[in-house]
Amino acid sequence: MAAEEGSFKALNENTLVDYIKATPSLCSRLGNDFGNLKIKEVGDGNLNFVYIVTTDSGSLVIKQALPYIRCIGESWPMSKERAYFEAITLQEHGRWCPDHVPVVYHFDRVMSLIGMRYLAPPHIILRKGLIAGIEYPLLAEHMADYMSKTLFHTSLLYNTTAVHRQEVAKYCGNLELCRLTEQVVFSDPYKKSEYNRCTSPYLDEDALAVQKDDALKLEVAELKAKFCERAQALIHGDLHTGSVMATQDSTQVIDPEFAVYGPMGFDIGAYLGNLILAYFSQDGHADAANDRYAYKQWILKTIEDTWKLFEKKFTSLWAENKDGSGEAYLSAIYNDRVFSLAQENYVKDLFHDSLGFGAAKMIRRIVGVAHVEDFESIQDAKIRAGCERRALEFAKKLLKERRGFQTIDAVIVAIQEVPF
Amino acid sequence: MAAEEGSFKALNENTLVDYIKATPSLCSRLGNDFGNLKIKEVGDGNLNFVYIVTTDSGSLVIKQALPYIRCIGESWPMSKERAYFEAITLQEHGRWCPDHVPVVYHFDRVMSLIGMRYLAPPHIILRKGLIAGIEYPLLAEHMADYMSKTLFHTSLLYNTTAVHRQEVAKYCGNLELCRLTEQVVFSDPYKKSEYNRCTSPYLDEDALAVQKDDALKLEVAELKAKFCERAQALIHGDLHTGSVMATQDSTQVIDPEFAVYGPMGFDIGAYLGNLILAYFSQDGHADAANDRYAYKQWILKTIEDTWKLFEKKFTSLWAENKDGSGEAYLSAIYNDRVFSLAQENYVKDLFHDSLGFGAAKMIRRIVGVAHVEDFESIQDAKIRAGCERRALEFAKKLLKERRGFQTIDAVIVAIQEVPF
Ligand SMILES: Nc1ncnc2c1ncn2[C@@H]1O[C@H](COP(=O)(O)OP(=O)(O)O)[C@@H](O)[C@H]1O
Ligand SMILES: Nc1ncnc2c1ncn2[C@@H]1O[C@H](COP(=O)(O)OP(=O)(O)O)[C@@H](O)[C@H]1O
Ligand SMILES: [Mg+2]
Ligand SMILES: [Mg+2]
Ligand SMILES: [Mg+2]
Ligand SMILES: [Mg+2]
Ligand SMILES: [Mg+2]
Repeated sequence: MAAEEGSFKALNENTLVDYIKATPSLCSRLGNDFGNLKIKEVGDGNLNFVYIVTTDSGSLVIKQALPYIRCIGESWPMSKERAYFEAITLQEHGRWCPDHVPVVYHFDRVMSLIGMRYLAPPHIILRKGLIAGIEYPLLAEHMADYMSKTLFHTSLLYNTTAVHRQEVAKYCGNLELCRLTEQVVFSDPYKKSEYNRCTSPYLDEDALAVQKDDALKLEVAELKAKFCERAQALIHGDLHTGSVMATQDSTQVIDPEFAVYGPMGFDIGAYLGNLILAYFSQDGHADAANDRYAYKQWILKTIEDTWKLFEKKFTSLWAENKDGSGEAYLSAIYNDRVFSLAQENYVKDLFHDSLGFGAAKMIRRIVGVAHVEDFESIQDAKIRAGCERRALEFAKKLLKERRGFQTIDAVIVAIQEVPF
Repeated sequence: MAAEEGSFKALNENTLVDYIKATPSLCSRLGNDFGNLKIKEVGDGNLNFVYIVTTDSGSLVIKQALPYIRCIGESWPMSKERAYFEAITLQEHGRWCPDHVPVVYHFDRVMSLIGMRYLAPPHIILRKGLIAGIEYPLLAEHMADYMSKTLFHTSLLYNTTAVHRQEVAKYCGNLELCRLTEQVVFSDPYKKSEYNRCTSPYLDEDALAVQKDDALKLEVAELKAKFCERAQALIHGDLHTGSVMATQDSTQVIDPEFAVYGPMGFDIGAYLGNLILAYFSQDGHADAANDRYAYKQWILKTIEDTWKLFEKKFTSLWAENKDGSGEAYLSAIYNDRVFSLAQENYVKDLFHDSLGFGAAKMIRRIVGVAHVEDFESIQDAKIRAGCERRALEFAKKLLKERRGFQTIDAVIVAIQEVPF
């Protein structure tokens, strides 16, 4: 053992057993009982290895990052330090929102390995639930809770600038993952790139049109600058519907390995943008038994409720903490009427940021490298392309005209007005 | 010696001699000749000790930071690590603009001590030159050169995001100095504070009005957030006319101890705002022999030229480097017509930021803790208050209406329209 201390080793379903047995914090989660031990690799994600570990007396999940991107291979190296940023973010976000973040049992920085709570069935990845047409009555409430608490408590509305700058510095180290976002979200879709793909030949022209759309590219430049420069809060950084696991009464946010101090709207937009993608994909999942009409209405209502509840919870947290340690709006300056105005301004900007980032996230899922299962699972390419085109047209409009939207209701109306 | 290695010691005119003699990089600057050695402390600044060292064969300046603010004393502690940030910024800015930044000969982090080029007479502090009514024909050209080169080359227009995040992290350590800015520029003037002062009783009402001006406070909140959150470039952080030493043909920028990755407009605004303060102070320096009319016109022309030359140099640097390593606007995306549009948008935002920060810097010099010699040297309090009030009224207007100004010419017109 001693010889290997301090060195990284990629584990597998077999070697993981010894690792667990040698790690007290993991053993205890299994009740120190290895009867009926089962280990199964389930990493359906793009980047890492995820193992579900169960025994007669307990369960846990092990996630290990390798020094490259799993789905591409060693040809695309990627710092395995991302596991460190994922672990400390699960802990920090978990501190503010324990109801919606899995507990971290163990973290091994050298091994880039996290042990965390196993989100047992019926938890499934939200994106799969949305494809299956499952309604989640508490989803809006839960996600609004998660986003408001994590973003508020890691911003200057809650922290001193001293704490803030220290944390910003720490997360600057997650630069490789940020660079991936910069490339695949803000750059590749707007230029020729070997990585881009689309539902060809149907969307070939549409993809080219994105690359020639000056107005769109100018807006994207602003968003990219905001992503790279603005340390507003500790964001999850990859908050799509594949980073959420849900049941009818539980909602859990996983996989914050892209975490960084960035614009809050990047998280809110990623999430809402992916819900809008789910909406536009529904027509591709409709069949004789289910036209998905009611489900589309439920998605729209969930989008509306998510933003409205977020706004309510976020401004409430702010109001409750206005005499606290946050240094952006000192209560000796901002009180009474001007406090409400300050909140209004802040939330309005955040709303427009969210729409912009959300739109950018939608576009990149249609003409960039990484597509979403919502569309990919539509077998008929022509039908898929039709769904994608409507989503793309809406996203382009939203990105360019976002400042014209004053309410989420107006956004919902615009979604419904996209012509077939 | 060994016993003291690694420990900080505040030097004085006497103990500095031994320090210099024990430091080869300093000795060599004095030609290794201590004949006629003279050491004189000249720190007219607020924070640190500055020694001019001359011998028959050479000269240099030594600047030492103590762990508190000099003009206040040990009751206001302040990290002496500020000397480290000053030293590395002099080096980084000097790398991009050697013509306008003094060379660093020596840096001792433990001692918080910098050895640098002595800017010999006729160099004087620009603020003193402005008070004396001296015209500097090359000032606009030089300062535009300094600001465009230092800001451009430390931004994402020139650097990769990897370099950028590394540098941002490093400068997060300068948080104590940033906190001082946050307090004295963006907070204290807008609330009751034991530190605030103004030309009393004349400006008492004006100072109170600032604290009651909701529209003003909402704008200041936006600027404060930008200062705390937006890592756009390595800014000097304290670029007023007291941080510039000038002759008829030389312009040198000193004292970047407040350096941090922040919004570019903070530097440009600080500098232009202090020129505008100089303008409004001139009536207090007019006498029978010199009504200062021509000099006021020269200041206005200098403000106009500084911005116009800055814009020209900055966009030229950008155009020259558009196929370089900068990652904000990849040339595969932003070329031809859209490149010009992108530049226009960027510069327009920067202009409005600069006006906002400039206005905030003006306001804090009239109703905050630290005033400027331009006004302080006006003996007659009533005349001084009159000058200050006009500057304050203009600054408030500029802060609130900055987005309405499309050109620097419009700003110049507005300055001249301030009623007596
Ligand atoms: N705590 C958990 N409980 C149950 N399943 C999980 C857990 N964490 C991850 N998974 C499963 O593993 C998959 C990949 O995990 P994820 O953290 O998204 O990895 P990646 O970073 O590779 O995308 C998820 O889609 C989910 O199916
Ligand atoms: N390199 C230099 N050459 C000549 N004089 C200098 C130099 N650096 C500083 N000084 C003088 O010392 C004063 C204080 O220096 P400064 O760097 O502004 O210190 P502080 O941080 O205390 O404001 C300046 O106003 C100037 O008169
Ligand atoms: Mg994932
Ligand atoms: Mg992941
Ligand atoms: Mg507060
Ligand atoms: Mg100074
Ligand atoms: Mg200084």
